Amino acid sequence: MADLSESELTQAVLDRVGGATDARTRVISQALVRHLHAFIAEIEPTETEWKAGIDFLTAVGQMCSDTRQEFILLSDTLGVSMLVDAINHRVAGAATESTVFGPFYVEAPTFANGETIAGHLEGTPMYIGGAVTGAGGQSLPGASVDVWHSDEDGFYDLQKLHEGQGLAGRGRFFTDERGRFHLWTVRPTAYPIPDDGPVGKMLTAQGRHPYRPEHVHFMIAASGYRTLVTHLFAEDGTYLDSDVVFGVKQSLIKPFVQRTGGRAPDGRTMTGDWIELQHDFILAPEAA
Amino acid sequence: MADLSESELTQAVLDRVGGATDARTRVISQALVRHLHAFIAEIEPTETEWKAGIDFLTAVGQMCSDTRQEFILLSDTLGVSMLVDAINHRVAGAATESTVFGPFYVEAPTFANGETIAGHLEGTPMYIGGAVTGAGGQSLPGASVDVWHSDEDGFYDLQKLHEGQGLAGRGRFFTDERGRFHLWTVRPTAYPIPDDGPVGKMLTAQGRHPYRPEHVHFMIAASGYRTLVTHLFAEDGTYLDSDVVFGVKQSLIKPFVQRTGGRAPDGRTMTGDWIELQHDFILAPEAA
Repeated sequence: MADLSESELTQAVLDRVGGATDARTRVISQALVRHLHAFIAEIEPTETEWKAGIDFLTAVGQMCSDTRQEFILLSDTLGVSMLVDAINHRVAGAATESTVFGPFYVEAPTFANGETIAGHLEGTPMYIGGAVTGAGGQSLPGASVDVWHSDEDGFYDLQKLHEGQGLAGRGRFFTDERGRFHLWTVRPTAYPIPDDGPVGKMLTAQGRHPYRPEHVHFMIAASGYRTLVTHLFAEDGTYLDSDVVFGVKQSLIKPFVQRTGGRAPDGRTMTGDWIELQHDFILAPEAA
Repeated sequence: MADLSESELTQAVLDRVGGATDARTRVISQALVRHLHAFIAEIEPTETEWKAGIDFLTAVGQMCSDTRQEFILLSDTLGVSMLVDAINHRVAGAATESTVFGPFYVEAPTFANGETIAGHLEGTPMYIGGAVTGAGGQSLPGASVDVWHSDEDGFYDLQKLHEGQGLAGRGRFFTDERGRFHLWTVRPTAYPIPDDGPVGKMLTAQGRHPYRPEHVHFMIAASGYRTLVTHLFAEDGTYLDSDVVFGVKQSLIKPFVQRTGGRAPDGRTMTGDWIELQHDFILAPEAA
């Protein structure tokens, strides 16, 4: 057997992982080895730097729990999640654009249209409503609409479960016979992604702030249509130009309209300040 | 703000991480983003594949413990550890060649020359001895020589700590006034790296066996010299051509000489079968 030079070593690893019987596994494994080795060959890490990399990845993995997904945060903050999103949604056409899923989704209880998902959250009342249609404008009754958002301090319910409070600021709705949904909640706010872990340390080292602009998450599903994962961003929000996860798209920035008193779209008589967010979502057909 | 195409997204992330104040952090961060995005752009993962990648990395991190380093296994099995080793030891010159550190090192108790490190391990007695010198042949008294190896079933002591047995098959020696060390232990064997975790699943998917050829680990340190991390591989061993971590170098393959009875190099009268492994190690100067 011959000793391997650096390039011969890379080739030996490529040959070895080429033994994968599944063609897709082979393609992914070989591409991983090529790009990973090219990265290492370019930066020429010291052994101390290699160990720091091992320790970083280990810390990211160990930070993960049922309510914290640090590797998704890493993917998000390195722009990988949005790149995967872009690759998988190249032809949006008339359909509503997608953005990152984020680490804070869990399946939520179902609510009837018009109910509030605020739970124990406090803040400015916010009405959210809209239609769900196909690209041709046809209304989609019975579509599921998952909504989730932070509280007014910038935390998701999952981040406060250890305080003994339950899920709040999230719920599943179904569109009515006209393909419409509406709900009440409280206005969220811009917030830092959880930055008390290794990803937060990385952001600090990279001279970056950890903030996301104010937004509400939506996941909308209807039979025969492609599930839409997206946000609506507040037009008057901060950090729209520097979202730590690169998730902002122009078409998803909407007015979070400030109202005082009067009558809400669902007929409720309002006193004091409240917010109105209306948006119609267009789903792409499943085959697109 | 404008929407980002896929290549514009990569550039936006490069610009963002370019804010790192430390120059080396900036270089590594930007290289990581470029190669990581190139990998993603090449394989065009579905969202399900992306999630499988997140789940894989998470499982690797969660498998790590005080006695199991799954990310080092991943680095080893993807050839990254040996590439880092090659980059950091380009000019071996007369010095003994290095190889992977592996995940099974922990600091061991110190033994006097001639003592056994076998502890509770059973197997064929094995004598290991040699000199430690500089490249000019000068002997190096007081050099530390860490030795560690698997048992005859292919397990390291760390893998059996949960059975209540202590460290065995590892020890630290210091070279005597002539720069020589020797010790007794039992012969190790070829073994599979721990393959009950995500790295094992990866190997299976890639059609690879998990075995390393039989070897003994050495880490040798002397003031003014570069610390040497290496193995000696058994010349009559299996898997020399397909080490799962790509660690074999021709110069590190040595006869594990089979003896019966007679007198050992340290004068001990032997009965039955035993093994003799002699090797002189040459350290590179610190500045090299």
